Amino acid sequence: MSDRVSFQEYMQQISEKVTASLEDSLPHHWQVPSSLKESMTYSLMAGGKRLRPLLVIAACEALGGNGEAALDAACAVEMVHTYSLIHDDLPAMDNDDYRRGKLTNHKVYGEATAILAGDALLTHAFYTIARISAKHGIDAAPILAIVQDLAEMAGPRGMVGGQAADMEGEQGVTDLEHLQYIHQHKTGDLIIFSLLAGGRIAGGSEPELEALRTFGSRLGLAFQIQDDILDLVGDEAKLGKKTQSDIKQEKVTYPYFIGLEASQQQVESLTREAKAAVLNAGFQDPERLLEIADYLMHRDH
Amino acid sequence: MSDRVSFQEYMQQISEKVTASLEDSLPHHWQVPSSLKESMTYSLMAGGKRLRPLLVIAACEALGGNGEAALDAACAVEMVHTYSLIHDDLPAMDNDDYRRGKLTNHKVYGEATAILAGDALLTHAFYTIARISAKHGIDAAPILAIVQDLAEMAGPRGMVGGQAADMEGEQGVTDLEHLQYIHQHKTGDLIIFSLLAGGRIAGGSEPELEALRTFGSRLGLAFQIQDDILDLVGDEAKLGKKTQSDIKQEKVTYPYFIGLEASQQQVESLTREAKAAVLNAGFQDPERLLEIADYLMHRDH
Repeated sequence: MSDRVSFQEYMQQISEKVTASLEDSLPHHWQVPSSLKESMTYSLMAGGKRLRPLLVIAACEALGGNGEAALDAACAVEMVHTYSLIHDDLPAMDNDDYRRGKLTNHKVYGEATAILAGDALLTHAFYTIARISAKHGIDAAPILAIVQDLAEMAGPRGMVGGQAADMEGEQGVTDLEHLQYIHQHKTGDLIIFSLLAGGRIAGGSEPELEALRTFGSRLGLAFQIQDDILDLVGDEAKLGKKTQSDIKQEKVTYPYFIGLEASQQQVESLTREAKAAVLNAGFQDPERLLEIADYLMHRDH
Repeated sequence: MSDRVSFQEYMQQISEKVTASLEDSLPHHWQVPSSLKESMTYSLMAGGKRLRPLLVIAACEALGGNGEAALDAACAVEMVHTYSLIHDDLPAMDNDDYRRGKLTNHKVYGEATAILAGDALLTHAFYTIARISAKHGIDAAPILAIVQDLAEMAGPRGMVGGQAADMEGEQGVTDLEHLQYIHQHKTGDLIIFSLLAGGRIAGGSEPELEALRTFGSRLGLAFQIQDDILDLVGDEAKLGKKTQSDIKQEKVTYPYFIGLEASQQQVESLTREAKAAVLNAGFQDPERLLEIADYLMHRDH
């Protein structure tokens, strides 16, 4: 396509669309206590890379689907991601006062409202997905499959399980297998979900969904190892946060177990595997997914 | 039916079935951190009347549907109810140490795990519903409608909104309208959801679902006013908790606004309206729903 925009522009456009759509998707016209509405909005609008929404839309477009129809699923996954950050930041969990340079939700609205805002965002994500069928004229069956995927990958054997394992880990346990469990579930599962959701909205076949699942599992792990590496050797100015926080918090990481060089090699080989899965699946337009994989491997923040 | 069991036996049978099915529905065979699994189980198995599951199954059977197929939805609503109790009991919320004579979840497992157990139960409820379609051979469309109902009635303009309004109320506000908002959403919405879910599984028509909605809204409010009355004049031994706790906690109640006698009259007239909605809808077998309405009005705990 001659009018194809650069990857940077593509990312930027999607990020802006998602932010506008998130604003619309909030229950502004509903009779909802103002403290709850404000705290939901505060964290949803606090920025971030909007990486998961990008994956939903890119996966949908790779299979020739309509990215507009994927926008609601993209917003839903960002709501789930945001709820998980609000709850993770709570005093009983990681006890963080700042995220991305802004006060965390409970520092602004208090703990009770922060807990409820997280609960509300998680629940509203399911609402946002359930409505896609009627809103965009898509069969109920693939949308119900997206609901089931999300409930599985964000639930006890998915993201919440990963967070629980991370909490248990702070009490002493830890070998590489445990770290892999945490990475896979706390971060990886929602990345896989994002790709599958986009694929399902595009009406993807089982082999296509399987390729997206493989792409997501490799990409998710590479993403998390890269995070560990950046925490160790990254540029604080670019990251917007202090490096070596993992060491100071005595959190074990990939470099801790297998060394920095082997970790970097892992990121490269996982990225290669991810790209191969997409290249071998015969997608109509795989380019953006490949660009995302390269972008994540080379990012410095 | 000559082999029809008494209402007490009917309730007891459903309660036992639900408890056994909840046990099965937990992710025992999944690789889930043990702290998370144990704390989910602890609260789910802590007893309770299983009122919401009873409503799901009774509504399904009233429309001639198969109560077995409704059992999963019944379990899901109990998971949502349980998650809401775990989060409500947290120190940042109502700060309760005991519920039904047992230590609250966070007193046993710590705050972090209690927050995650709530998150996991809410998410697992959606999983349990989403699976009904494939498991019981029911079309995806009505099951997706149940997902949307739950997300709406448990979300920011439903149960979570009611809880947020209750929290705001503790800081001083309060008139009868505010109290009604709290009752309607904190308690009423999940009661309406339960009836609708049973009706949808039975393949209920729009007018039938509408009748269930009316029944639920009257019943839910009557239930809550009756709670307020019992807190004021109930028998501590039967209730299993101290009476007049609302007064001591300076919580406003129906009797506070309109007096005890008018509150009792409200319960009676709401119950009459609830029963009329069901009687006029021409359900195949409305008897159990009518018995539930009478039971709730006359209960002493």
